[in-house]
Amino acid sequence: MVPHLITALTGPINELEARVLDSMPAIERWFRLEWMEHTPPFYTSVDLRNAGFKLAPVDTNLFPGGFNNLTPEMLPLAVQAAMAAIEKICPEAKNLLLVPGAQVHNTFYLSNLQQLVRVFTQAGLNVRLGTLDESIKAPRPVALPDGSELVLEPLLRNRGRLGLKDFDPCTILLNNNLSAGVPRALQHLHEQYLLPPLHAGWSTRRKSNHFQSYEEVAKRFGKLLGIDPWLINPLFGKCGEINFSEGVGMECLTSNVDALLGKVRRKYKEYGIKEKPFVVVKADNGTYGMGIMTVRDTKELEALNRKSRNKMSVIKDGQEVSEVIIQEGVLTNERMNDAVAEPVVYMMDRYVVGGFYRVHAERGVDENLNAPGSSFVPLAFSESTHLPQPGMKPGASAPNRFYMYGVIGRLAMLGASYELEATDPEAEIYD
Amino acid sequence: MVPHLITALTGPINELEARVLDSMPAIERWFRLEWMEHTPPFYTSVDLRNAGFKLAPVDTNLFPGGFNNLTPEMLPLAVQAAMAAIEKICPEAKNLLLVPGAQVHNTFYLSNLQQLVRVFTQAGLNVRLGTLDESIKAPRPVALPDGSELVLEPLLRNRGRLGLKDFDPCTILLNNNLSAGVPRALQHLHEQYLLPPLHAGWSTRRKSNHFQSYEEVAKRFGKLLGIDPWLINPLFGKCGEINFSEGVGMECLTSNVDALLGKVRRKYKEYGIKEKPFVVVKADNGTYGMGIMTVRDTKELEALNRKSRNKMSVIKDGQEVSEVIIQEGVLTNERMNDAVAEPVVYMMDRYVVGGFYRVHAERGVDENLNAPGSSFVPLAFSESTHLPQPGMKPGASAPNRFYMYGVIGRLAMLGASYELEATDPEAEIYD
Repeated sequence: MVPHLITALTGPINELEARVLDSMPAIERWFRLEWMEHTPPFYTSVDLRNAGFKLAPVDTNLFPGGFNNLTPEMLPLAVQAAMAAIEKICPEAKNLLLVPGAQVHNTFYLSNLQQLVRVFTQAGLNVRLGTLDESIKAPRPVALPDGSELVLEPLLRNRGRLGLKDFDPCTILLNNNLSAGVPRALQHLHEQYLLPPLHAGWSTRRKSNHFQSYEEVAKRFGKLLGIDPWLINPLFGKCGEINFSEGVGMECLTSNVDALLGKVRRKYKEYGIKEKPFVVVKADNGTYGMGIMTVRDTKELEALNRKSRNKMSVIKDGQEVSEVIIQEGVLTNERMNDAVAEPVVYMMDRYVVGGFYRVHAERGVDENLNAPGSSFVPLAFSESTHLPQPGMKPGASAPNRFYMYGVIGRLAMLGASYELEATDPEAEIYD
Repeated sequence: MVPHLITALTGPINELEARVLDSMPAIERWFRLEWMEHTPPFYTSVDLRNAGFKLAPVDTNLFPGGFNNLTPEMLPLAVQAAMAAIEKICPEAKNLLLVPGAQVHNTFYLSNLQQLVRVFTQAGLNVRLGTLDESIKAPRPVALPDGSELVLEPLLRNRGRLGLKDFDPCTILLNNNLSAGVPRALQHLHEQYLLPPLHAGWSTRRKSNHFQSYEEVAKRFGKLLGIDPWLINPLFGKCGEINFSEGVGMECLTSNVDALLGKVRRKYKEYGIKEKPFVVVKADNGTYGMGIMTVRDTKELEALNRKSRNKMSVIKDGQEVSEVIIQEGVLTNERMNDAVAEPVVYMMDRYVVGGFYRVHAERGVDENLNAPGSSFVPLAFSESTHLPQPGMKPGASAPNRFYMYGVIGRLAMLGASYELEATDPEAEIYD
C-alpha cells in the first residue's frame, strides 16, 4: 500500500502493472511472510527507473536524505511507521540521538533533518542531534529556511555508551552514510541500538552485494507472479581492481561491459525492444551521484580521456574508486513537463511512507539523474484519487502506478535486508 | 499522532490542549508502554464531547461502523494500521472472514463494509463476508451505492472451525456487536482467531464496566500530565434492577441521579463553571443511540410518562433494559455551521486512522447525537495544515485540537483494553 503521488502518465502501458494489481493480496502476504524471516532496514529510499517494458531499482539508500520532499499529507504515515519501528526496537525509549551527515551546510539537508526530528518527536521521542564533526565543541544552533533552528551538539562517548550532555539515548539513528569510514565514537557500542548497523555504511557496503541480494529477491518474486525476473531486475557485473587514473584493470571493465551489453541485447531481442542497450559504470561503494558513467559501446572505454578518468577515480570524501559495478542501464520513460524523471520511493520500517520524482530537464533518458544541480520535484498526495483500483485499465490509474512503484521499492528494501544479513560481520563470527 | 480533520474552532480555548501538546513525547511513550502490557482492541471508535472546560469520551464502540465516513486520504493510514494488526495476530493469514452486523439493508452500513473489505484486501488478505442471517442459504449479492456489489455468504461451521464454502480463514473479524446474543456458529472456536472476542459484544459488555476501567486510565493519565482526571473523565453511577415499564427500581435511579448531579455541581463550582449540570441515563448494554435520556433534575424522573418509560425499556433487537448507567452529561461546544457536533475518533490497532464529526442541526448541546436522522458530516484531512504544531496558541490550531482528540480517543481505547481483560471469562478460569 502506497500513498498516491501525482504524475503525468505518459509511459507505455505496463503489463507488469496489471499483474501486480491482480496479485495484490498475494503480494502483501508474501511481504508479510518475508518480514517474519528478515528484518527491514530502519529506513530506506529507492531510486527506480521505469522504461515502460521494465521497471527496476537502480539505487537503494539506507541513510536516506530528502524526507523534506515528502508532503505534509505523507507525514502521518511516516509517524505511524516510526511508532511501529520504535515499538519493536526499544519500546521503553525516551530519547533518540540522531547523527546527521556532513552536509549540514546544505539547507535542503537541514530541512531533511528537521523533518526527521518532527517525525520521531511525534512518534514519542525526545530527539537531539549529535554531530561527528569534532570541530564542534559546544551546542551550535543552525538556522533553517523556515526561520526556526536546529542545534548540533558534540557527541559524548562514555565507555560503552554514546550520548550528549545530559542525554542518554536508548537508540542512535544514523543519517550519515559513513562514506568517510567508521568514526571511533560509533565503534563498539554494545549497550545501545545503533541503526542502521555500521556495515550498512559505504565504508563496508558494496552496490554489487546489494544487487546480488536483490537478484535473489527478484527471482523469488518473479516466481510468485509468474514473470521473468529480468522485468524488474537490472543485470550487472563487477570489477575489483580498477585504477582509472593509471588505466589499470581496463580489460576487466571492457570485457564486463561487452558481456553485459550482449546479455541486454539478447533480452531486448527476446522482447522485441528497439532501444539501444547501454550500461552504467558506478563506483561499487559510491554515492551522491559521483563516480558514474554511461557506456553504450566498449569503444567509448578506449576513448576515455584524462578528464573522464579523473572524474571516475575519486568519489565523495576523497575515497579512491577501485571497485566498480557495471549495471544494465534502464531507460526512464517517465516525464514531468517534458523533463526526464525517475521516481524515488521512501520507506520506514516495512512501510512505504511516500515518494517523489527526481527530475532534470537537461538530462537524457539514459543518464544518471542524481547529479549536482538536478532539480527535485516533490510529489504530492493525489487528493482526489483513491487507493489502488483493481479493474482499471493498466497505465490509466496513477494510484495503481504508484502501488507498483511501492512494491518494487519494497523489493529493493527486502534485497537490502538480505544484503545486510549476508554481510553482517558479527554473523560470521558466530557461524 | 492524528490525521487532521477540518472544523471551525469556535470553542473556548482549552488549557488541556496546551498541556497535551507540551507533553506529546511523554504521552506517546506512555501509550507505548501501556501497549506493552495491554492488548489494544482490534478496532475502536470513540464518541467524544468537548465542553471547552472538559473533554471526555461518552461512548466506546468495539464493532465500529462508519468507516465509510473516513476520507480517501485517511485510508492509507488504515491500511498501514491493518497490516500492523494482522502481522501481530496471524502473519501467515491468507483469508479473512468478515461477519457483518444485521444492518445490511442500510446502504450506509454496506458502504462501511465495502470500506473494511478494501482496507483488509489492501493489507494483503482475501476478504469474504459470512452472514449470521440463517435465512441466507446461498451467496447473495447486495448492491452498493457506487454500483458495485458485495456478496453475503452463508457460514459453514465444521467442528472447531468457521468458514465459507471453499474458504478457510485464519481470522474471523466481527463487525456485529452481538446485541442479540452470541450465535452458536461463533461459540467454541478454538482454532481460529475471533476478533474482537465474544465478551466484547453487548450480550456481555456493560458500559459501566467500560467507564470504570476508563476512570482508572484517566487517573493514571491525569497523574502523568498533572491534571485533575475529571477534566477528561465523565463521572457515573449505575443501577442493576430497573424495570421502566413497571416502575421498578426508580428509587435507585433517583438517588443515583441526585448524587451524581450533586457531584457535578460541586465540580462546576470548583472550576467556576456557570452551566447547569445534567446527567444522561443509558441502558448499560445499550447501543445505536436507543434507551437514552437526559435528566437535569430528579423531578423529571417522577414525571416520566408512559411513552418515555416504554421508550427506555427496550433497546436494539428487543432486549429489555434492566441495568442502566447514569453518566455525567458533557456539553458539546463544537459547532459545524451552527449545528451541534461531536467528534468521533477511529482507531485500528493502537493507531488513530481518522475521524469525523457527528452533526445534528435540530438537537441541543446536552442531547445525544447518535439518534435516527442525525446527519453525519465526514471530516476531511485538512490539506494545508501541518501535524501537531507545538508553540501555537492553544485553540488556534486545528491539528493541535485533533491531536488532543486522538489522545483522548486512545485513552478510551486503553480503557476498553483494561475492561476486556477484567471481563474476560477465560481469564477467570485460569486465575
